[in-house]
Amino acid sequence: MKHKRVFIQEVATRDGFQNEAQFVDTEEKIALVDQLSKCGYAKIEVTSFTSPKAIPALLDAEAVMHRIRRQPGVIYTVLVPNIRGAERALSCGVDEVNLVMSVSESHNRTNLRMSREQSFAQLRDVIGVVKQTNIAVNVSLSTAMGCPMEGDIAEEEVLSWIQRFSDLGAHGVTLCDTTGMAFPSQVGALCEAARERFPALELTLHFHNTRGMALANTLAALPSGIDRFDASLGGLGGCPYAPGATGNVCTEELVHMLELDGYDTGVDLAGLLSASALLPQLIGHDVPSQLLKAGRRMDLHAMPAMSDDGLLAQRTFAAGA
Amino acid sequence: MKHKRVFIQEVATRDGFQNEAQFVDTEEKIALVDQLSKCGYAKIEVTSFTSPKAIPALLDAEAVMHRIRRQPGVIYTVLVPNIRGAERALSCGVDEVNLVMSVSESHNRTNLRMSREQSFAQLRDVIGVVKQTNIAVNVSLSTAMGCPMEGDIAEEEVLSWIQRFSDLGAHGVTLCDTTGMAFPSQVGALCEAARERFPALELTLHFHNTRGMALANTLAALPSGIDRFDASLGGLGGCPYAPGATGNVCTEELVHMLELDGYDTGVDLAGLLSASALLPQLIGHDVPSQLLKAGRRMDLHAMPAMSDDGLLAQRTFAAGA
Repeated sequence: MKHKRVFIQEVATRDGFQNEAQFVDTEEKIALVDQLSKCGYAKIEVTSFTSPKAIPALLDAEAVMHRIRRQPGVIYTVLVPNIRGAERALSCGVDEVNLVMSVSESHNRTNLRMSREQSFAQLRDVIGVVKQTNIAVNVSLSTAMGCPMEGDIAEEEVLSWIQRFSDLGAHGVTLCDTTGMAFPSQVGALCEAARERFPALELTLHFHNTRGMALANTLAALPSGIDRFDASLGGLGGCPYAPGATGNVCTEELVHMLELDGYDTGVDLAGLLSASALLPQLIGHDVPSQLLKAGRRMDLHAMPAMSDDGLLAQRTFAAGA
Repeated sequence: MKHKRVFIQEVATRDGFQNEAQFVDTEEKIALVDQLSKCGYAKIEVTSFTSPKAIPALLDAEAVMHRIRRQPGVIYTVLVPNIRGAERALSCGVDEVNLVMSVSESHNRTNLRMSREQSFAQLRDVIGVVKQTNIAVNVSLSTAMGCPMEGDIAEEEVLSWIQRFSDLGAHGVTLCDTTGMAFPSQVGALCEAARERFPALELTLHFHNTRGMALANTLAALPSGIDRFDASLGGLGGCPYAPGATGNVCTEELVHMLELDGYDTGVDLAGLLSASALLPQLIGHDVPSQLLKAGRRMDLHAMPAMSDDGLLAQRTFAAGA
């Protein structure tokens, strides 16, 4: 009873790795992207063409982009902060560039060291350059469901930033719950409003599980017709305002839930779990993914051994509910 | 815009502590229950009157029940496996007894070392004894959304067990997702069916976050009119089939989401967070609660210090979306 196609966009090698202290070897990055390319994603955000000084974790952006084996049907996108980044990205033949700014002034100044208008002007120039090619432009709007310094961002404010980038010709906009402040009824309302006002725009939702609500928020986004979600393998990613908290919504948990609920993600869950299992060795620590620990719901267990009377020979489990 | 009352039932001192290797001192248990009693819960499952040999973590059930300071308006319930347990519980003046069996034959044999019919006969006798008093009886049906050995349990099978206990005079039934196998559309359908067939029964949903879906499942249960949820402070609890995975749905995360969505839980979230912060010391390890790490969504942060030009003096955060 697959009733609706949902598109899954992987961000672990960009949004995940950029938060890691341990540098992931270039060969390992390439091998992971190649493995993920076989899993049925709609899009993979491979890396970021930011300054190697700002984000040393991704200083090998060119090498990675040049050497991955691209799978037909998968869109390979990269984060680009400015003209220089766009030129580097275009020279690698990316399918899409992803631009980013915050809808909150405080967060934009904190994260990008400039005002929102400065960011907008810079991104407008980038779009101008990229539009000379056939490369698609997506814009990720950070703090769309709340800013850790300012609190709520008015829905109209978010919509007006979508409008400005839509007017510049962006083919897609991602609404990012950068620090995990989104909650279901807010998500439902914002998605309804955005979907209605921008019916032709490719809209993506980008949730973080910082406060445990990422899957509930996904569920709240679906009724409006939202059909694209960013997610991060293993739940990699993070938030400087919540040390130790979980990061982006975990791809394998998102796919697991959506497929059980009858959505067709196109993604091979077994393949995801195999790939996710490799992450702890790459980054040097455990990952937030619960599904990796628990297995899929129908990965069943054998009954413990019984004695002759049909009862358990061994000590019972704690008699929990 | 508080639009609906939802009742929160705490299970950490029973379902949580029984899974802990480290014995929580009796005085500390009492202090925790007393602290929770001030937080606005509808019900607190204080302890379990099982054999101290089976669950040594709760061998102090009488002492705890006798010495907590009960708050008017809070129902103090306890888990009771058999007549002996019921007698012990009644001698402590509990408000309710909570009985437990699995709707899956394999899980009942594994967890309780007897067949479902043997469990039913035993619980029928317990209900007979308790019904001679004014004490209420709730029955928790384990594996109602799936059995880790058998897989799916037919909805009709679950409903038939509710029927049998309803016929015996149980005032409430809890549908337990014992090993975190529930998914949203399944939960919605089961809740609809149960709510429709048993309109007078007090129905509770008991979710585990084993595969990350506890809050999404909560969201899926609400439209049917379900208004009672078990939850565990800090997310304590566990599942022997998923070592290292998270346990019960985390009370503070559940309350945080419901209140943001406009539900009135009656629960003091700040009080919960204070109590949850004490858990790591009591049990000797970190707890799954993400909210405890991240804080509430509107616990805002100050902007980092700026230099004279209005830009950040310090190193920027990673430019993430």
